[in-house]
Amino acid sequence: MTTLEEALREAAEAVDTALDSLVPLTNGENGRLYEAMRYSLFAGGKRLRPFLVLSGADLFDVPRAWSVNTAAAIEMVHTYSLVHDDLPAMDDDDLRRGKPTCHVAFDEATAILVGDSLLTLAFEAVTAPSGHPDAGVRAALACALARAAGADGMAGGQAIDLAAETRELGLDEIVRLQQLKTGALFGFSCEAGAILAREDGAARVALRDYAARIGLAFQIADDLLDHEGSEADLGKAVGKDAAAGKATFVGLLGAEEARRRAGALADDAIAALGRFDDRAEPLRAVARYIVERRH
Amino acid sequence: MTTLEEALREAAEAVDTALDSLVPLTNGENGRLYEAMRYSLFAGGKRLRPFLVLSGADLFDVPRAWSVNTAAAIEMVHTYSLVHDDLPAMDDDDLRRGKPTCHVAFDEATAILVGDSLLTLAFEAVTAPSGHPDAGVRAALACALARAAGADGMAGGQAIDLAAETRELGLDEIVRLQQLKTGALFGFSCEAGAILAREDGAARVALRDYAARIGLAFQIADDLLDHEGSEADLGKAVGKDAAAGKATFVGLLGAEEARRRAGALADDAIAALGRFDDRAEPLRAVARYIVERRH
Repeated sequence: MTTLEEALREAAEAVDTALDSLVPLTNGENGRLYEAMRYSLFAGGKRLRPFLVLSGADLFDVPRAWSVNTAAAIEMVHTYSLVHDDLPAMDDDDLRRGKPTCHVAFDEATAILVGDSLLTLAFEAVTAPSGHPDAGVRAALACALARAAGADGMAGGQAIDLAAETRELGLDEIVRLQQLKTGALFGFSCEAGAILAREDGAARVALRDYAARIGLAFQIADDLLDHEGSEADLGKAVGKDAAAGKATFVGLLGAEEARRRAGALADDAIAALGRFDDRAEPLRAVARYIVERRH
Repeated sequence: MTTLEEALREAAEAVDTALDSLVPLTNGENGRLYEAMRYSLFAGGKRLRPFLVLSGADLFDVPRAWSVNTAAAIEMVHTYSLVHDDLPAMDDDDLRRGKPTCHVAFDEATAILVGDSLLTLAFEAVTAPSGHPDAGVRAALACALARAAGADGMAGGQAIDLAAETRELGLDEIVRLQQLKTGALFGFSCEAGAILAREDGAARVALRDYAARIGLAFQIADDLLDHEGSEADLGKAVGKDAAAGKATFVGLLGAEEARRRAGALADDAIAALGRFDDRAEPLRAVARYIVERRH
């Protein structure tokens, strides 16, 4: 039986191969832009969202050749969001995964264009005829990805998060914020398998429920790591949200209750997968991993 | 017979109605983001690219209901590019169409998110099932739009343009730069009609040729306006590229030769439409307008 670690590594290799081909090294006039895109894409991310796409697609035996472009696309959207969030005008972070952030390693203008280009390329990746053979699936993937990433999804969540620096949020507000900021993209990652398989019924709803729970669990675990972790483990500044006066799950609930809730959410996420057979084991295992990870 | 002015106004009204519905006023938590998106979208643009989409679609009698979302999408992508290009880290412009730029009227973080959100929403607009009834057309629109806007199109052109500030470009290089920076989006705007009509043969090639010529003519006319125009006419700072030591068509060719070339390109663009009947009159008229406009 494949361990989660092996499954994560195998998915990361598949998505890295796709990313390497979608964002090639080039000697062209825009070579520096591509170099900066690759710098941020290949900065040691865990490829968790691509893993969710591929594992969700595996539930329905969708061929890997049809799902890998979507997995690469979600990683491009995730990376774009990190590059823009790190900008001086946003969170102003110099360090990400232990390396200088894109605008530090290159420059601010390049970092803006890296984000813009990765976001744009994600839509090319899901709609290119070389991906899924059904154009209806390709259009549906692009539409769902846009909804998850846009002003009523991730970008909207980031806007609310920035506004939150000027006032303290309550628990309901922080849950809602995280649903947009990180939950929406988790949702797309998990539902993509159903879209790729043209499953629009209960199976898709189950994946949506699973995604909502692991998305929130992921965020609580992040707050716990930020609270407990060391900068060396995380490769980024820690305690920053709390220091900035931003409400966090740990600040609102205390570490013990936050840990209990994250665990309960992982249980609920696994319960949401009850209708699936053994092919859902990687999704079950990753729900545990999300709340137990150390970085 | 409808004059070009009337046709431009009619197209602008159609696309503004679509934009108003795609980017509504909202009281939600992300209301300020939507407000800023609308601020930049409704800042008095000429809606030239939407006009090209709608006029191209009219060549094939594509129903307006199927083409207007694509027209709105191209305007969102164009607006996103202006908002990001105006940022302090990019061209650092305070004024656009006579009004404070987005990051001045709001703030820099909001302007970054406005651009990100408009770009994302453009892909939702072209792929939403409420648009064209053929999902294959929707996927093809998204794929072509992504290619035109991304690292091998508009965003790549902007990256090369920023790098050009450190060395002087020759005429061939500046043509190539403008093909990416402004030409690619003109190309999509003109080809969209053929995509919407599922025309993939000579008609599409003719539109592509037309687009390449008006795109370059547009840029030369822009340089001429920048050279001759007043800040009051243009609503933005003038003479800036030349002052920054950037090569311009006027600087390389002289104003007279630049004007002659722009006119010749408009003639060539009109010649490229030879296969089309009277339904191409708006496209023929706008080719003239592009080189004769005063703002």
